[in-house]
Amino acid sequence: MGFAFDEATTVESVGEGRYRGQVSPDWSIGIASNGGYLVSLGLAALGRALPHPDPFAVSAHFLARADPGPVDVPVEVVRAGRGLSTGTARLEQEGISRVHLTATFGDLGALRGPTVVTGALPAIPPPEACVPAVGSEASPFTQRFDLRLTPESAAWVTGRPSGVAEVAGWIRFADGRPADAASLPLFADAFPPTAFNLFEGVGWVPTIELTVHVRGRPAPGWLRCRFRTRFLIGGYLEEDGEIWDAGEHLVALSRQMARVNL
Amino acid sequence: MGFAFDEATTVESVGEGRYRGQVSPDWSIGIASNGGYLVSLGLAALGRALPHPDPFAVSAHFLARADPGPVDVPVEVVRAGRGLSTGTARLEQEGISRVHLTATFGDLGALRGPTVVTGALPAIPPPEACVPAVGSEASPFTQRFDLRLTPESAAWVTGRPSGVAEVAGWIRFADGRPADAASLPLFADAFPPTAFNLFEGVGWVPTIELTVHVRGRPAPGWLRCRFRTRFLIGGYLEEDGEIWDAGEHLVALSRQMARVNL
Repeated sequence: MGFAFDEATTVESVGEGRYRGQVSPDWSIGIASNGGYLVSLGLAALGRALPHPDPFAVSAHFLARADPGPVDVPVEVVRAGRGLSTGTARLEQEGISRVHLTATFGDLGALRGPTVVTGALPAIPPPEACVPAVGSEASPFTQRFDLRLTPESAAWVTGRPSGVAEVAGWIRFADGRPADAASLPLFADAFPPTAFNLFEGVGWVPTIELTVHVRGRPAPGWLRCRFRTRFLIGGYLEEDGEIWDAGEHLVALSRQMARVNL
Repeated sequence: MGFAFDEATTVESVGEGRYRGQVSPDWSIGIASNGGYLVSLGLAALGRALPHPDPFAVSAHFLARADPGPVDVPVEVVRAGRGLSTGTARLEQEGISRVHLTATFGDLGALRGPTVVTGALPAIPPPEACVPAVGSEASPFTQRFDLRLTPESAAWVTGRPSGVAEVAGWIRFADGRPADAASLPLFADAFPPTAFNLFEGVGWVPTIELTVHVRGRPAPGWLRCRFRTRFLIGGYLEEDGEIWDAGEHLVALSRQMARVNL
C-alpha cells in the first residue's frame, strides 16, 4: 500500500454486503469526481465479495455527480460460478445513487483457449516525443498520472482542436504504482475526452455509461492507449478505447457513451 | 400486436416492481435461448417502469442459460431524471438469476446537440446478392428473421471458415414487424458468431456480457449490420457490431464479450 490509488479506493466492511469508503478529492476534475475512479472504488468493494480475482467485464451507469466525502457501497453477489462470478455495486451518498455498476469477475491467470489477434498495435510516438499533460489545483486528477499525449491529441490544449475525435498517448501512475487488472478501468477513463479535439470550448463531457473489458494483466511499464469517436449523433457519442501494455499486448478494451455539452 | 417479437416479450405486472413473462421456445438456438431475446424481455419490463421511451445504453450480464417457460422479472428504478432514467431488470427462473441487465433510457426523438460522423457505412453487397440464412426445427431462432449473409460471412456454412472473424449482412423480421429502438438490442445479437469464421467446429459461443448503445430510431426496411472480432485472447473475444438503417444512418453500436468453446 502507500500508493494513492490504493488509499483512495480502500473500503471497510460495515455489515453483510455493505462497505464504506471515501470519495477522495484528489481524483476530481473540476467539481466532478472522475468516473473511472468511482468505478474503481465500487470494484474494490465488489471484489471483496466475489470469489474470483480479476474484473473481466465491467458495466457502469453514471446517475449523478459524486462529491468528495463518505460513500456507502452496497454490493450484491448475483451469481458465483466455478469460472466466473457476477455482482453489483452501487455508490450512494446521502441516500442518492451516484453510480451503479455490474461486473463479472474471473481469473486472468487461468485463461485456457485459443488466441487470434488481428487488431494492430496503435502507432504512437515514444513517450519522450509526446506532450506531458499537466494537472492543476482545481483539477488534481491529472496530477495522479504521468500522462503523455501525442502532439495531434494535444492540439486542443493550445485552442486549436485537431478536428479528429481521437486522443492517444502513454500513461502510468505518477507515484510508481504498477498498473494491474484492477486499475485498468481507471486508465480507461483517464485521458481527456476525444470531443476536446472536435470543437473549441467543449465543457464537461459527462459519461452516461462505461464498459471495460479487461483482457489481460498488464506487464510493468507504460500503458499505450488510444481513444476514438466515430459517431457523435445529436450530442451523444461513443468513445472506444484500447489499452496495450509495455509488452505490446492488448490488456483492455473500453467503450463509453457520453454527452457533449457545448 | 400480433407480431412474434411483441408476443414473445409481453410481460404482465404482478406487483410493485415485479413482472412476469414467458421465455418462448421460438427464440432458441439449440438448447439456449438467444441472449438478445432475453435482453429484450427484460427491457420490456424495465421500459414499463421507467418514464422515458427509448433504451439508450443497455448492459447485460449473462449468468446462466434460460429455459423456455415462465420467468420472473423483478425491476428496480435506480434513478429517474429529467432527460435520462436508469434501472435494472433481472430474469429469474426457479429462484436462479439467468440475466442481469442495467439500462439507461431517454428520448431519441428529443436529441439536441451536434452530429459529426466519421464512421463509414459498411460496404455490403445488396440483399439479393447475399446468402439467406435458414433456420431449423432444432434452432427456431433463425426462422424469426429474414437474414442475408455476405458470401464471405457465410463461408463457415459450407465447412470452410473464411479465417476472418467477421460476419456482415442484412436483417429484418420475417413477419414484417418494423424494426424500432426497442428491438435493436435483439438485432445486435441475432447474427451467427464471428468465431464460426475462425475455426471449424466451434460449438456454443456463450455471451458473458453484452452492451448495446441505441443511437437512433431506425427507418423502415432492412438493417445493414457488421460484426467484427479483433482480439480473441485465451478463449475470450469481443464482438463489435454496427447496425445501420435503410436511410444509411447508424442506429446502434454493440459490443459483447463471449467465450469460444472449441
